[in-house]
Amino acid sequence: MNLILLFKSDFIAADTVVINDRRFHHIKQFYQPVQAQQLKVGLLDGEIGQGTVTQLSDQSITLQVTLDKQPPAPLPLTLILALPRPKMLKRTLQTVTSMGVKQIYLINSYKVDKSYWSTPVLQEHSVNEQLYLGLEQAGDTQLPEVHLRKRFKPFVEDELPALIKDSRALVAHPYNAAICPPAEDINTTLAVGPEGGFIPYEVEKLQDAGFAAIHIGPRILRVENAVPVLLSRLFPV
Amino acid sequence: MNLILLFKSDFIAADTVVINDRRFHHIKQFYQPVQAQQLKVGLLDGEIGQGTVTQLSDQSITLQVTLDKQPPAPLPLTLILALPRPKMLKRTLQTVTSMGVKQIYLINSYKVDKSYWSTPVLQEHSVNEQLYLGLEQAGDTQLPEVHLRKRFKPFVEDELPALIKDSRALVAHPYNAAICPPAEDINTTLAVGPEGGFIPYEVEKLQDAGFAAIHIGPRILRVENAVPVLLSRLFPV
Repeated sequence: MNLILLFKSDFIAADTVVINDRRFHHIKQFYQPVQAQQLKVGLLDGEIGQGTVTQLSDQSITLQVTLDKQPPAPLPLTLILALPRPKMLKRTLQTVTSMGVKQIYLINSYKVDKSYWSTPVLQEHSVNEQLYLGLEQAGDTQLPEVHLRKRFKPFVEDELPALIKDSRALVAHPYNAAICPPAEDINTTLAVGPEGGFIPYEVEKLQDAGFAAIHIGPRILRVENAVPVLLSRLFPV
Repeated sequence: MNLILLFKSDFIAADTVVINDRRFHHIKQFYQPVQAQQLKVGLLDGEIGQGTVTQLSDQSITLQVTLDKQPPAPLPLTLILALPRPKMLKRTLQTVTSMGVKQIYLINSYKVDKSYWSTPVLQEHSVNEQLYLGLEQAGDTQLPEVHLRKRFKPFVEDELPALIKDSRALVAHPYNAAICPPAEDINTTLAVGPEGGFIPYEVEKLQDAGFAAIHIGPRILRVENAVPVLLSRLFPV
């Protein structure tokens, strides 16, 4: 927790927040706060700044906040990800949020187990919980948008062409692919398959839609590692 | 499992292996093998190649193997990592093995909980299990060496100077640091702190020993993501 994420509902005055939920326990554990201590805060979808501890009890902490800085710049990326299994989904949502991804499409693929679509992790409050943790980790405030697309073909045929307009569209695929292009701060759409990869039909459909297949070397990485590796290869620091 | 890792003890003849343990169940689950099917195999610390299914029972699989290719090149990297908590340690060992790290030093640091040093995950057979999984994931055979260093100061003062000789020595540190240098295929020593980072004293000791502090942008990442990001920024595909 490198930033305390604030919500409009935390405010009891224009510059004062009271926090008494999960975040309060995190704050106590990580910062062991004392009166007048300054903590890094940020308003959800707003600016970041400092919160000064003005009151502290066993149940809550009160901060006087100044919000005066922009959050870190987002990655100019739309990430299209075959729905991972629930445990991995949680981690992946946190990871890509902490790395600055703001548009996430979770899509179906032949190797996505049907049961994954009924996990409670996909419920909005549960998705948001992971996104908040990612923002708090990275010191960011801009909530990503998560879109669910349960049918591969209509998504690729009807929706993707507009989505990838004016972006470099890439699909991570370890076979018969070009080497990952150099880091550039340009609009990018990246598709990443499930564990075991997209099947040939899916890769072809993506290529027909305008995606180029790229690889990141002879080693096959798990999705949870492949995504951070791809993002760091595609964008400069 | 993108490669079936073979051990000398699997061989019942010069070119024949019988597998009946954890790997047998993985093979059944992932490949649903049939007679004459070819599977990618590799001998621990040896070459990689193909195994042809010659016998299949409920308890074991027999493969006739040809080993004729070199495994992927290792990263020219020594990774020095503050000991993560046990669950993260498992994942991190798998991750860095799958990415080609061959020298791993797990060290103490002020923010490493003392209890972490007594986890069963650090027992040799348990460490090896994670390393094997990493090799199987990546299609590699060269087992990394894992070194445990329970005392920070003697390690940094007495051992590090020789370790970092002829390498670029870098410590990942988000504050007062230079931007991560460009990818280069050269000998590198990289130190990564615990969650919460090295304390200033530790960063100073590392800098005194010849390490340069580097950062990977304004976002603070969890160790499990920071390591893949650093490795992909420091080395070309």
